[in-house]
Amino acid sequence: MAQIQRFEVGPRLSQATVHGDMIFLAGQVNNQAKDVTGQTRAVLEQIDHLLAAAGSSKERIVTATIYLADIKTFAQMNVAWEAWVPKGATPARTTVEAKLAAPEYVVEITVTAVK
Amino acid sequence: MAQIQRFEVGPRLSQATVHGDMIFLAGQVNNQAKDVTGQTRAVLEQIDHLLAAAGSSKERIVTATIYLADIKTFAQMNVAWEAWVPKGATPARTTVEAKLAAPEYVVEITVTAVK
Amino acid sequence: MAQIQRFEVGPRLSQATVHGDMIFLAGQVNNQAKDVTGQTRAVLEQIDHLLAAAGSSKERIVTATIYLADIKTFAQMNVAWEAWVPKGATPARTTVEAKLAAPEYVVEITVTAVK
Repeated sequence: MAQIQRFEVGPRLSQATVHGDMIFLAGQVNNQAKDVTGQTRAVLEQIDHLLAAAGSSKERIVTATIYLADIKTFAQMNVAWEAWVPKGATPARTTVEAKLAAPEYVVEITVTAVK
Repeated sequence: MAQIQRFEVGPRLSQATVHGDMIFLAGQVNNQAKDVTGQTRAVLEQIDHLLAAAGSSKERIVTATIYLADIKTFAQMNVAWEAWVPKGATPARTTVEAKLAAPEYVVEITVTAVK
Repeated sequence: MAQIQRFEVGPRLSQATVHGDMIFLAGQVNNQAKDVTGQTRAVLEQIDHLLAAAGSSKERIVTATIYLADIKTFAQMNVAWEAWVPKGATPARTTVEAKLAAPEYVVEITVTAVK
């Protein structure tokens, strides 16, 4: 029975779990900014920190799911995403519209990475 | 070519697939109850049974995605979730709003676990 | 640090990433047809091609997530899905409603497979 490592363990969820060389992050949200570009930047920074804690980095994301509260903000999300994602090392990605846990959240991103 | 084990194999989907020590469950729904707390309890019980069949348990879930037909039921879902999820061993989790396959379903949960 | 292989690498995403024996595809869409059955068929063909490139096939999908722009098209999606999915080797699957990146897309499918 291989071990599971957990980071920022709360009563509902852990912000990251690690099993073998696979890293699973919880869906990340951040409402410090109001707009999608700003929230995406903040979310991607959180992802950087969690991946670093788990022994990985954005170059080692294998897949990402992006939920937008309004799919019409797709291009605004991509402004922050394309500035952040490593050229030549982009992950598989799926982007869909979904309302999020609180109305002030306009983007949520979940990633799976490897060590 | 490593083998894939499948559980409750149907014409559209299997309720669980196992490859190596990774276990992937199909999205679980249950409409015996009408309310979100009740449906969440029933869904989590199904997850317990599938994980047991596949040689795992709720302590070994690495990530979960929760779809709520109405995101305003977030707190009601969490009542059942927090009573069920093991303290100190919570998975990464993402929760979003999405309409589900039939209108009577108010919550659907998909989990990935390890043996 | 295990290597990540990438296929059809773009500035936002790669259509597939491979790590060890796990294969992650980007969400696939195709708007050549207007209806859900036709778009599902085209999407599943794209999945066949990507899996072949990555050294796998539809018999080796462990899990799939299907997003329908209108959940009322569930049965129409399943016509194409059931004709395609290998009998006795169906993956775990989750299907929910979500608006997609462009209004002409009526179905998007994301799969994880193994070599």
